[in-house]
Amino acid sequence: MKSLDLNCDMGEGLGAWKMGDDAALLDHVTSANIACGFHAGDPGTIHRTVELALRKGVAVGAHPSLPDLQGFGRRRMSVSAEEVYDMVLYQIGALAGFTTACGGQMAHVKPHGALYNMAAKDWALAKAIVQAVKDFDSRIVLFGLAGSELVRAGQQAGLRTANEVFADRTYQADGSLTPRSQPDAIIHDAETAIAQVRRMVREGRVRSRQGGDIPVQADTLCIHGDEPNAVQFAKRIRQALDADGVRVATFSR
Amino acid sequence: MKSLDLNCDMGEGLGAWKMGDDAALLDHVTSANIACGFHAGDPGTIHRTVELALRKGVAVGAHPSLPDLQGFGRRRMSVSAEEVYDMVLYQIGALAGFTTACGGQMAHVKPHGALYNMAAKDWALAKAIVQAVKDFDSRIVLFGLAGSELVRAGQQAGLRTANEVFADRTYQADGSLTPRSQPDAIIHDAETAIAQVRRMVREGRVRSRQGGDIPVQADTLCIHGDEPNAVQFAKRIRQALDADGVRVATFSR
Amino acid sequence: MKSLDLNCDMGEGLGAWKMGDDAALLDHVTSANIACGFHAGDPGTIHRTVELALRKGVAVGAHPSLPDLQGFGRRRMSVSAEEVYDMVLYQIGALAGFTTACGGQMAHVKPHGALYNMAAKDWALAKAIVQAVKDFDSRIVLFGLAGSELVRAGQQAGLRTANEVFADRTYQADGSLTPRSQPDAIIHDAETAIAQVRRMVREGRVRSRQGGDIPVQADTLCIHGDEPNAVQFAKRIRQALDADGVRVATFSR
Amino acid sequence: MKSLDLNCDMGEGLGAWKMGDDAALLDHVTSANIACGFHAGDPGTIHRTVELALRKGVAVGAHPSLPDLQGFGRRRMSVSAEEVYDMVLYQIGALAGFTTACGGQMAHVKPHGALYNMAAKDWALAKAIVQAVKDFDSRIVLFGLAGSELVRAGQQAGLRTANEVFADRTYQADGSLTPRSQPDAIIHDAETAIAQVRRMVREGRVRSRQGGDIPVQADTLCIHGDEPNAVQFAKRIRQALDADGVRVATFSR
Repeated sequence: MKSLDLNCDMGEGLGAWKMGDDAALLDHVTSANIACGFHAGDPGTIHRTVELALRKGVAVGAHPSLPDLQGFGRRRMSVSAEEVYDMVLYQIGALAGFTTACGGQMAHVKPHGALYNMAAKDWALAKAIVQAVKDFDSRIVLFGLAGSELVRAGQQAGLRTANEVFADRTYQADGSLTPRSQPDAIIHDAETAIAQVRRMVREGRVRSRQGGDIPVQADTLCIHGDEPNAVQFAKRIRQALDADGVRVATFSR
Repeated sequence: MKSLDLNCDMGEGLGAWKMGDDAALLDHVTSANIACGFHAGDPGTIHRTVELALRKGVAVGAHPSLPDLQGFGRRRMSVSAEEVYDMVLYQIGALAGFTTACGGQMAHVKPHGALYNMAAKDWALAKAIVQAVKDFDSRIVLFGLAGSELVRAGQQAGLRTANEVFADRTYQADGSLTPRSQPDAIIHDAETAIAQVRRMVREGRVRSRQGGDIPVQADTLCIHGDEPNAVQFAKRIRQALDADGVRVATFSR
Repeated sequence: MKSLDLNCDMGEGLGAWKMGDDAALLDHVTSANIACGFHAGDPGTIHRTVELALRKGVAVGAHPSLPDLQGFGRRRMSVSAEEVYDMVLYQIGALAGFTTACGGQMAHVKPHGALYNMAAKDWALAKAIVQAVKDFDSRIVLFGLAGSELVRAGQQAGLRTANEVFADRTYQADGSLTPRSQPDAIIHDAETAIAQVRRMVREGRVRSRQGGDIPVQADTLCIHGDEPNAVQFAKRIRQALDADGVRVATFSR
Repeated sequence: MKSLDLNCDMGEGLGAWKMGDDAALLDHVTSANIACGFHAGDPGTIHRTVELALRKGVAVGAHPSLPDLQGFGRRRMSVSAEEVYDMVLYQIGALAGFTTACGGQMAHVKPHGALYNMAAKDWALAKAIVQAVKDFDSRIVLFGLAGSELVRAGQQAGLRTANEVFADRTYQADGSLTPRSQPDAIIHDAETAIAQVRRMVREGRVRSRQGGDIPVQADTLCIHGDEPNAVQFAKRIRQALDADGVRVATFSR
């Protein structure tokens, strides 16, 4: 039986600032990627989010980022592989403080924003992230863009990896996501987005923006928690997958 | 045979900024309290300091602080017990990421600066720190001002605790340190400072600023690494303790 | 003819995080206190808020804070008068960069959160804020709690000052606000809040929590922009003041 | 009579961390570029540095940076022109708060680190910096790499500009500096460095790393204050220029 993990970025508030309806989303997703303080997430927010996710039986992962609160971790920075190793290890450790204290375990790591995109194509940075995860706990699952250098580096190092796919983003012929700066990067129609996911899961294929089909492995689907209809969308995806006989389940178990 | 631990705050640089000669001091102390990023210490600095301390056989501890880079963690803040719990857990976790990745272990936790002073007298904050340490790993040793609420809270919760004493600070009749704002808070003469330590270790007593002797338990001595003669002073303290038949050894072992 | 200024804290987002509906509130208030980056407000948010306020004819003021993004400037810190002088001057200057570039002028300064409360009672800190404002531009109006040390220090130094009153907070017999930690600190009923304002403006009096009336000068009223009904409340206050023949007008003009 | 300005980055400490011997260097340079808080420089450090520079008659300039304390502003970030405009305006304003309060004037602006390098080649970012400077005060002199896009954008907008040259860096055939990652980027020999400066000033030429001479306009020379022999080097440069009949004088006067 095929299965798919649904993951969502969470704990992305900071002090008085909130983002997304984590509590509602945790009823629908199977993996929570929790901000670690570098792009979002103060210690109190992290604590409450970890606790809530564990209570709802959702797998807890770290969501490390470049250090950039003002830019929400979305701006690329010229960082060395050594700097990336250190910043990822710091953030994984910090989050693990809370999973440990709450009696849980860190299940996965998914880099955030610009760091995610950089690691998808830059082999040295991908390896640095992989090494930090492995040196901390080699049982942790690494989430990366399906077919990316990050996933490849994880596999080569012997980590379990989850190929992440997107419902609402179009794909390029080389398997990368169409950059947001381009006009048809985003799929705004929910039906089209759901259809793309169903096909990726059942057939292992996605239609590229250039026209032809490309192969894609769909282990986990990203739910964007900061969009207004996120909860509604998560419900509909689950119904569609149910109808297809696809099990929605935590990948890292 | 009596013994004394020598601890020193370390890793207190930030990026391009350096502080103290950690490498030299690590040849003379037995416990390193490593900054965790809130008052000092970026991930790279933390990594290098943890690695160096482990290589030299010095016990590695976390040195968590209030979030205040500009004030180096020395300014009191009105934080709740819950906030203190969360900020300490975050920082312990982050540091443990590096000890784990380096194949070592976190041996102790010593709060920094204003947080140390606040926890010495405020029972609620002391308990919050103790709980964070215990929830993370109950084998960790808690360092606090000798006779403080922090040490008392740690003991009550079943943690191993180390009473910290100071060579270069005078003591009040109630066992607290004379505030730096007062004229005779600091002992500038090295001989006097060393004599104070010897007496604290051998006799368990220190002369208070008001005149009488007060009892004090000396488990670990604080070496101020940011002072110009820190290395020289550490050497002399060790010689004096040797001469007294006091063993200098890591407390947390 | 009596008049009252309506002021509101604004620009209190940070990068991706938003707070309050500044655009809607700017149609109803006469003074905007704009966050300067220490408790909220990145340069982009500041720029857009200054521009919008100036376009809507609302007076622009600086809203400097203690450096505490995680705590939104609401946590007291033990800072020296010299540190306060420097941090206020830095933030006033930064905000003035935008008013100058937008062809406007900084009209007033109102300290934020914990700094506001500290300066209401601490003469040395109040004087430090006053001096920073005066050294930068002695034409700037200083906003402070009605009857506070801050207002008194401003007056003594020759600054124009605005006594700030609150619709939704109860007053103590000494003229201070009832601390939020106490049960009846907040007036939840809008009618009661409006009645309190009307009386403060018309009679220069407010009923204290202990029972008797106390004198109060109402130059400017604080509208809490982060409350859900802020816009609605601002409209109702204006209607009530209109009905009383009180002119709502910018104080700093 | 030919003349040359000597500029130095200053105020690059942060709270407890120090960098460079500003007091000594201020006896030898004619322009001080003062950190504004984004890569270095807390309000207290800024205040003391501005005061000292003004007292010694050295021209005070702002030294704005990308927001990156950990990386000391040396790491490139993918920032938009709008973001650069806003961050530069914020930092110029903040520094001007201190020059105004100290009774002085901001004389020039020199971007720091990665922002300086990015603006040397990226026309859109160069224009954003120029616009921020011009919108704030069109009398401010803009310092940029000799022949760079930044200088060109400044000239086109009608700002006074100063072409900056380096004593200890080698030049490429296109007039850019050899990247530090390359082996012969740095001139370690002081005699060679001084000879390069003398030739740039007297002949308007510098030998490129590829072999041929290239034209260069030398308005201001960068003294690296964080190098151990900075003061000594500044003295020797001044002696050499004196011997050549070149006047060392503030460019922005």
